[in-house]
Amino acid sequence: MRPEIKISIIGAGNLATQLGITLFNEGYFISQVYSRSKKNANVLSKKINANAISDIKKLSADASIYIIALKDDAIEIIAKQLKLKDKIVVHTSGSIPMDILKNSSSNFGVFYPLQTFSKTKKADFKTIPICIEANNNTTAITLQYFAKSISGNVNKINSLQRKKIHLAAVFACNFSNHLYGIAEKLLAKEKLSLDLLRPLIEETVNKIKDKKPCEMQTGPAIRGDKKTIKTHLNLLSKDKDLQKIYKLMSESIINSKKNK
Amino acid sequence: MRPEIKISIIGAGNLATQLGITLFNEGYFISQVYSRSKKNANVLSKKINANAISDIKKLSADASIYIIALKDDAIEIIAKQLKLKDKIVVHTSGSIPMDILKNSSSNFGVFYPLQTFSKTKKADFKTIPICIEANNNTTAITLQYFAKSISGNVNKINSLQRKKIHLAAVFACNFSNHLYGIAEKLLAKEKLSLDLLRPLIEETVNKIKDKKPCEMQTGPAIRGDKKTIKTHLNLLSKDKDLQKIYKLMSESIINSKKNK
Repeated sequence: MRPEIKISIIGAGNLATQLGITLFNEGYFISQVYSRSKKNANVLSKKINANAISDIKKLSADASIYIIALKDDAIEIIAKQLKLKDKIVVHTSGSIPMDILKNSSSNFGVFYPLQTFSKTKKADFKTIPICIEANNNTTAITLQYFAKSISGNVNKINSLQRKKIHLAAVFACNFSNHLYGIAEKLLAKEKLSLDLLRPLIEETVNKIKDKKPCEMQTGPAIRGDKKTIKTHLNLLSKDKDLQKIYKLMSESIINSKKNK
Repeated sequence: MRPEIKISIIGAGNLATQLGITLFNEGYFISQVYSRSKKNANVLSKKINANAISDIKKLSADASIYIIALKDDAIEIIAKQLKLKDKIVVHTSGSIPMDILKNSSSNFGVFYPLQTFSKTKKADFKTIPICIEANNNTTAITLQYFAKSISGNVNKINSLQRKKIHLAAVFACNFSNHLYGIAEKLLAKEKLSLDLLRPLIEETVNKIKDKKPCEMQTGPAIRGDKKTIKTHLNLLSKDKDLQKIYKLMSESIINSKKNK
């Protein structure tokens, strides 16, 4: 069903590792793995039967798709050094413009998997949403086929949408994680563990599986329970930063109720 | 193993319903269910083979444990009307002082299940942390036995700890849910669904199962990625409230890194 195509992976970090392993297991032939660190390139390339390079000039032209899975800052530096004619070149970032690749090839795009990765934890790409974007129709079609060969959740999006998705992910994931951290510190001061809140945290996520989050909002702010809000602000009197967050989030919840 | 004791439940809302059903299924005899609304009292009492009352004066003295599972505001109003001598009386609130019950009985306390409930979704109390507190040692022991008969996660806590747990839950659950709502609205403006972020939201929670949240923090703020932060603030230029939340949360993440 799938054409016999070669992939090269530029990067050997968390995403590069999980994506490389997934593509290899799906039967793709991985030509090269590039990393600034020869050691990291070696580690990944051994796992996926590829050649390791640590000098980008040694990137061969034998692959059909080049995946730049590097940190945001490094993408532009590497992109400037690529001259891949009409080979497909993609980056994997939620926040970097697609056009950063316009001088690397005539066919370029974005392949943005919406998940957080680690080198050691096996990622199941089948359930990971992949957002793709391309500079022309042919590249878009190829990238759709390519993404669908590993994920059941492929979405064609434009640059503004991708930016908004990334922004929404910062709110829903980065900021939530920080709130878990705040909760942990508040509990630790009373010699209590975050484990106490784990079932409640998990249920909060379960509840939005089939309902809108705003319909599932609970707590003192949505109830208009000023007494509890005052008690909580008093408990936070020694930590003005947390007090500010509590106030601002509570006001935002109250306003969202008004605007409903 | 367990003494044949009768329970009466004051309340017929989400928690009262799930707790009542659980106790009934565990073999407890439920004497009465009180609700201001006769209809609600009837609905729950039929499920758990109890008598429904809507006049608190009709509360009989035949039970050993009285559970007040009402909204915070209603607890004090009802507590004032209870004269239960030495019967054990508890409320189920995270934020109301235990002493609100001091005139209801000589044995009183708190039975605070750390979970969010709905009338229709069956709650599995075995995994739900229950925080208990009592005004004397005997009541504390009885409440521990009682709580352990339905939950594998029973914690003896004091009033300050309970307040802090509730405060931490507001950060970790109420505020997180609001962030999911913000993410949903940002995506909806681009005709995108929150489903895109679901795997990432779930993985964010999975990752803190065996690691501290602060160790798992990702995103532009922790990376010190000022360029992306600026892009995001620009994207929010038409929504000053979200801009404020983004700034404050990002600053807080940056500060938590410094204080590590």
